[in-house]
Amino acid sequence: MIYRNGLKRHFRYNIVCIFFVLLIPTGLIAQSDPPFKPISADIISIPSKILGEDRKIYIYAPPADTSMPGKRYPVLYVLDGDNHFSMIAEYCRYLSRKDVKVMPEMIIVGIPNTNRVRDLTPSHSIFDFYGKPDTSSNSRLKASGGGNDFLQFIGSELIPYVDQHYKTQAFKIFAGHSFGGITTINCLLTQPDMFDAYIAISPSFWWDRGYLLNLADKKLTSDRIINKMIFYSDADEGSSEDGSTFHTDLLKFDTIINQRKITGLAHKYVHYPEETHMTEPIKAYYDALRFIFRQ
Amino acid sequence: MIYRNGLKRHFRYNIVCIFFVLLIPTGLIAQSDPPFKPISADIISIPSKILGEDRKIYIYAPPADTSMPGKRYPVLYVLDGDNHFSMIAEYCRYLSRKDVKVMPEMIIVGIPNTNRVRDLTPSHSIFDFYGKPDTSSNSRLKASGGGNDFLQFIGSELIPYVDQHYKTQAFKIFAGHSFGGITTINCLLTQPDMFDAYIAISPSFWWDRGYLLNLADKKLTSDRIINKMIFYSDADEGSSEDGSTFHTDLLKFDTIINQRKITGLAHKYVHYPEETHMTEPIKAYYDALRFIFRQ
Repeated sequence: MIYRNGLKRHFRYNIVCIFFVLLIPTGLIAQSDPPFKPISADIISIPSKILGEDRKIYIYAPPADTSMPGKRYPVLYVLDGDNHFSMIAEYCRYLSRKDVKVMPEMIIVGIPNTNRVRDLTPSHSIFDFYGKPDTSSNSRLKASGGGNDFLQFIGSELIPYVDQHYKTQAFKIFAGHSFGGITTINCLLTQPDMFDAYIAISPSFWWDRGYLLNLADKKLTSDRIINKMIFYSDADEGSSEDGSTFHTDLLKFDTIINQRKITGLAHKYVHYPEETHMTEPIKAYYDALRFIFRQ
Repeated sequence: MIYRNGLKRHFRYNIVCIFFVLLIPTGLIAQSDPPFKPISADIISIPSKILGEDRKIYIYAPPADTSMPGKRYPVLYVLDGDNHFSMIAEYCRYLSRKDVKVMPEMIIVGIPNTNRVRDLTPSHSIFDFYGKPDTSSNSRLKASGGGNDFLQFIGSELIPYVDQHYKTQAFKIFAGHSFGGITTINCLLTQPDMFDAYIAISPSFWWDRGYLLNLADKKLTSDRIINKMIFYSDADEGSSEDGSTFHTDLLKFDTIINQRKITGLAHKYVHYPEETHMTEPIKAYYDALRFIFRQ
């Protein structure tokens, strides 16, 4: 059974506020707009036949627009929902305000993890970050390689649910960081029609000794037509002495994208040398959304 | 009577989540950490004698750390709380997580507006953005010039309340955008001891035909000692044909700061040519906090 959690009600409240607005050129003075409201999300549970487990999903929907009851919204699907959902929802809420308005209001779908290694790896591998096989009996890598099942869950179960229960437009974005980044790129390479735009922040191309980079090399041939958008980025990972190949791998991916000149594939690569693997999402999700909704 | 609103209770809930963490180098793989929780805030009301009105205040406090019951936190005071409070609270919550940890956990105090023009202007002026006098009977500029009373409210009523009711450290930051930006700079110039660090995002130096820039020129003399930090920034305001002086004014302020070489005043100026007056806070608040807590 698919059910909705009633928590949303608890977050709805109103504060009486008086607004004073200075009537000078729009955009040059910050206005007082809605008072503080925490991001409210529906928390639903989808019993996935494909994954064989119930999946919790967070869904933020913009407040109803009484003047436009038929209004529909693009949808942003965010991996690692536990980490980034509420921050991205805050961005989108602010950036779609009528006095900011650099992107449309969106429905934000956060997908938290149950078994991250299983779901966010495109192939089975027992090789760890250092390229060494992990043969320990309790290795989490044992479960790896469920990425394609996970994409099937998103395409066949999650997206239809969201489209059925929310006022969605067809336009959809798929966003991920680290393992989430290789998941969105795997989707672009193998099932590009599932989304319209892809965000891959510091994708873990090291996975399975470069499996996804090899796949990109095979799939992104010059004769392909992919009318999609992709934003990818990395941080300072490559500058440390930890042997990280994040940066060099992403440069290889960028070279493939640039050299093949895929018809219709709009792309942007940003390197954030001042950010770490974990601070990068703050800037990169913002820049990615601005790229996708560039004016 | 000062009272606390009980809304916080409504936002508290728990989701049972199973976390799978891949044991590879810290910081190179996003971890599953706490599940989605919207920012919860106490909403208090302070009956201000100085302002002659009740003021709603939003306060986010980090969840209690049972292993360190005596733990105390720096405090970030944010003007235009209606606009930026929840976004900044999201930043700070994420950036202080144990797997990100580029700044300490903080108490965030959002100050929403009642009469923005009155409170966030350092002087009385009837001159509008275009330098023209607004003599209309309903002009909002009539009320302008309450900025110093407002600072007195913050210093004498708000900060003591927060220090009394929350586990605060002495370290305090004062952050504002636009009119909020001239308010934080006015505080630095006239009552620098009130805060340890100041953030002024696109301060409206145009106010009162350059009142604050003139004040800066007088107050920031070479023989002064101000052991404080200040971050200031602007966006593309100067590149448009609207006659905006945001950029040229901020360059003048930056020149004053640089030439006078005030002892102990750490400062950073960032220009965001790709951002607008209203999108700039997304990047600038982040960069400001990273500057203040640089490692």
